[in-house]
Amino acid sequence: MSGSLAIIGLGPGDDRYLTREAEEALASAEALYGYGRYLDRVPIREDQARHASDNREEGARAKAALNHAAQGAHVGIVSGGDPGVFAMAASVCEEIAAGPEIWRALGVRIVPGVTAMLAVAARAGAPLGHDFCAISLSDNLKPWELVVKRLDAAASAGFVVALYNPVSRARPWQLGDALARLGRHLPDATPVIFGRAVGRDEESVMVTSLAEAPGIAADMATLVIVGTAETRLIPRKDRAPLVYTPRAVEKVVA
Amino acid sequence: MSGSLAIIGLGPGDDRYLTREAEEALASAEALYGYGRYLDRVPIREDQARHASDNREEGARAKAALNHAAQGAHVGIVSGGDPGVFAMAASVCEEIAAGPEIWRALGVRIVPGVTAMLAVAARAGAPLGHDFCAISLSDNLKPWELVVKRLDAAASAGFVVALYNPVSRARPWQLGDALARLGRHLPDATPVIFGRAVGRDEESVMVTSLAEAPGIAADMATLVIVGTAETRLIPRKDRAPLVYTPRAVEKVVA
Repeated sequence: MSGSLAIIGLGPGDDRYLTREAEEALASAEALYGYGRYLDRVPIREDQARHASDNREEGARAKAALNHAAQGAHVGIVSGGDPGVFAMAASVCEEIAAGPEIWRALGVRIVPGVTAMLAVAARAGAPLGHDFCAISLSDNLKPWELVVKRLDAAASAGFVVALYNPVSRARPWQLGDALARLGRHLPDATPVIFGRAVGRDEESVMVTSLAEAPGIAADMATLVIVGTAETRLIPRKDRAPLVYTPRAVEKVVA
Repeated sequence: MSGSLAIIGLGPGDDRYLTREAEEALASAEALYGYGRYLDRVPIREDQARHASDNREEGARAKAALNHAAQGAHVGIVSGGDPGVFAMAASVCEEIAAGPEIWRALGVRIVPGVTAMLAVAARAGAPLGHDFCAISLSDNLKPWELVVKRLDAAASAGFVVALYNPVSRARPWQLGDALARLGRHLPDATPVIFGRAVGRDEESVMVTSLAEAPGIAADMATLVIVGTAETRLIPRKDRAPLVYTPRAVEKVVA
C-alpha cells in the first residue's frame, strides 16, 4: 500500500497564484477531488479521474479521497486559497483522526497557497502591515458568542481583522453584527476593505470606512479586512488610495 | 513618466512557492532591489540591474526603489514570503506617505506570496484550522507591553498564534517570555510547532508542547505556531504526527 493524498492550494482566482509546487502536485495526481468550482480551474486530463462535489460536502469528500488513496492511488484534493485556512486540510485531519488505522499510514502532504486575505491586502496596499488575525464569520460550526468574543479581543488589542465567510444566503446578518461590534472599539473612520472575487475577471476591491461598511454588499466570494485605529490611507490622483497599517506603534492605548 | 514599482513575494524557501504572477513580475522588472539573501534566489539576468541591501535597511531600500521608478523604470522589490506580512509592502507605503508627490503618481503593485505561517502549518497538518492570528515578536518598532497585551488577547479568546521574528541576536529573551505568557492561558500540553527554514534544504519542523517549547532553539529563520486548548495530535506509526485545530467549537470557555 503506497497511496498518498495531497491537499493542494490553488490560491484565489485564476491560475496566476498557482505555485510551482501546486502545479507539480496537480500533475502527479492520478485522481482529483474537490468542490466543483475549484476543480473547474484545473485543465482536464484524460488519464486523471475527477470527482466534483458540493461546497458543503467537505467531510464526505475527505473520506472518499482517503479511501481512494488507501487503495494505493496518488490522490489530490484541490482547495481554493490555502488548504489550511478555513479549507480542506482541517477537514481531512478530522476524518483521519476519526477513521480507520489505514488512513494514518498514508502519506499526506499539504501544498500551501496564497490565501484570500493576502491577495486582497495586496490589492489595497499593506493593510496587514502589523499584527493581524483571521476570523471566519460562519457560525455553522461555532457559537456566535465565540465570534463576538474574538472580535472584541482582536479589536481591543489592536489587531487588523480579516473576516472570512462574511455572508451566505443562510447567514445574512452576521457581517453587519460583526462590523457593529468592531465599531465599539474602533473609530468610524477606520479603513475597511471589501475584496470580491480577487484574481478573477469580475474582481472588485472597494476601500471604505467602518461607518460606511454596513452599506456595502458582500457574499461568500468576499473577504473583508477591517483596519485598526492606526491604519491609514494615502490618497492618490487618478489611482485608488493605498491602505496601510504602519509597522511602528509608539505607545499602548489603554 | 511611466515608471512602476512591483513588490514581489517570493514565498519562503526556494522557488517551489513562486507563483506565476511573481515569475511574470520578476521577468518584467528592469531592476531588482532587495535583501541580499532574497535577491540571491532570483537567477541573474544581464539586462536586469540588481541592488542588494542589508536586512535592516528597509526604509532606504524602499526610497531607492521609488526614486528609480520615478525616473521611469519598471522596478521590482523582492520580499521573502508575502510582502504584506511583516515585510516590504508596509515599508514602501510608509515612504510614499512621507515622500514627494511624484511617488504617489507611480503605479504600485503588490504581488502576494505564501507567507511562512502557511508553509509551516502545511508541514505539520492543519494547526491554523480555525481562527488564528499573527504577531511579530520584534519590539524594535513597538513596545513589548503591546506584544504582551496581544498575546493575552489572542490566547484568552482561543486564537491559534503564529509568532514571527521570534528571536534575533539583539532580542534573545522575547520568545521565552511570550511562551510563558501564553502558558497563563493554555494547558502545558498545547501543541507548539517550530518550523525553521521551511522550503529550503536545511528545513526542520518540530512538534512539541507548550511546556517543552522553551527548550527548543529558534532564530530569525524560525516561525513558531502555538495551538489552542482544542488543537490535537494524530500519532502515526513511522510518520510525524499530524497537528490540527478542529473547525468545530462546541461551547465558549469563560
